[in-house]
Amino acid sequence: MTTRREQTSGESRELILAAAAELFAEKGYRQTTFIDVAQRSGISRGSIPWHFGSKEGLLLAVLERSVAMVRDSLTEVPEAKLEELHLAAGAMFALPTTKLFVTLLVEALEPDSPIRGRYVEIHDTLREHCRRWLERLPLPPGVSAEALAVAIIGAGIGIHQQWLLAPGRVDAEQALAALSALVAGILPAESDLHRTGEAAAPPG
Amino acid sequence: MTTRREQTSGESRELILAAAAELFAEKGYRQTTFIDVAQRSGISRGSIPWHFGSKEGLLLAVLERSVAMVRDSLTEVPEAKLEELHLAAGAMFALPTTKLFVTLLVEALEPDSPIRGRYVEIHDTLREHCRRWLERLPLPPGVSAEALAVAIIGAGIGIHQQWLLAPGRVDAEQALAALSALVAGILPAESDLHRTGEAAAPPG
Repeated sequence: MTTRREQTSGESRELILAAAAELFAEKGYRQTTFIDVAQRSGISRGSIPWHFGSKEGLLLAVLERSVAMVRDSLTEVPEAKLEELHLAAGAMFALPTTKLFVTLLVEALEPDSPIRGRYVEIHDTLREHCRRWLERLPLPPGVSAEALAVAIIGAGIGIHQQWLLAPGRVDAEQALAALSALVAGILPAESDLHRTGEAAAPPG
Repeated sequence: MTTRREQTSGESRELILAAAAELFAEKGYRQTTFIDVAQRSGISRGSIPWHFGSKEGLLLAVLERSVAMVRDSLTEVPEAKLEELHLAAGAMFALPTTKLFVTLLVEALEPDSPIRGRYVEIHDTLREHCRRWLERLPLPPGVSAEALAVAIIGAGIGIHQQWLLAPGRVDAEQALAALSALVAGILPAESDLHRTGEAAAPPG
């Protein structure tokens, strides 16, 4: 049975995590202080270390929550429809969590980074989801589902970053549609998957 | 005429820039101090602000040098051969400059970042190079060279980052070969592609 006290503690924890995730995405990890998190979450500054120990503990908890959110968002995506690939990716770009992955990339790359393992887990989750989907398709000889998954997830990561840096110059939606067309291009024409490029072409 | 003094000054400048580029890639921009740069370059700490004004000035100069290096490396890449796309990308991954782009990404994304413009210039240079190459190929209807360039450069960026984070788990070479296969998949039969390549090649 959950007591009132436990429930409130769980709620506080979630409010702190949501605020920290936003702030890490907006300002970066290093620039964010416990005072910022307290102000954004409405939870007293003193209770943050009570919940998470240190700032590093808070960071790990934020990433753990993000891994779970990515997993949840993937289970909502229908697996086999190529036309929905770029819609799913576009929806993921819109999540505040996604910018967080960019601002935390540098921390994850540092030697002996405490978060690298968690960070790689997110990439693994995305690659694994993509690989399982690709394994059910007739791929051309010499191209493995594993290598293709790295390329496709990579394209998602790189389109997102180009768009974040220059939203006025990079059309993420068009780029994701082009990525779908690339994937459609290696599948047999007789497949029940539609060629996104042809479907999107204007008549004449 | 270049005097001995000017020549030495130019050499010092280059030594400082090379050391700073390495350190920013290894430790990140914020963690790097003038003392680190002086130790690595063998140039006295006092002469760094003399050359670059501030740490931000040094950062801008490092990025300017990187833009030039990317431009130079692209002019060395033969344009029309798809089979060489992943070799060129692999060679770019090996440059110390390339990791620099990852460690500086977070600085570039900060609001009012002084380096965002230069950073976007690097992406623009890569996209533009890719777009010009794609424009000479017969693309399927509904897929623009511009959107495809964002997707392909994005894949390069994202494969590189996955590999940097988990070199033991991500085979960058295989992923780049899979990207080549994706691009080949939307082009007409192999013979047509070669004709395009031959037409663009200089005689002799």
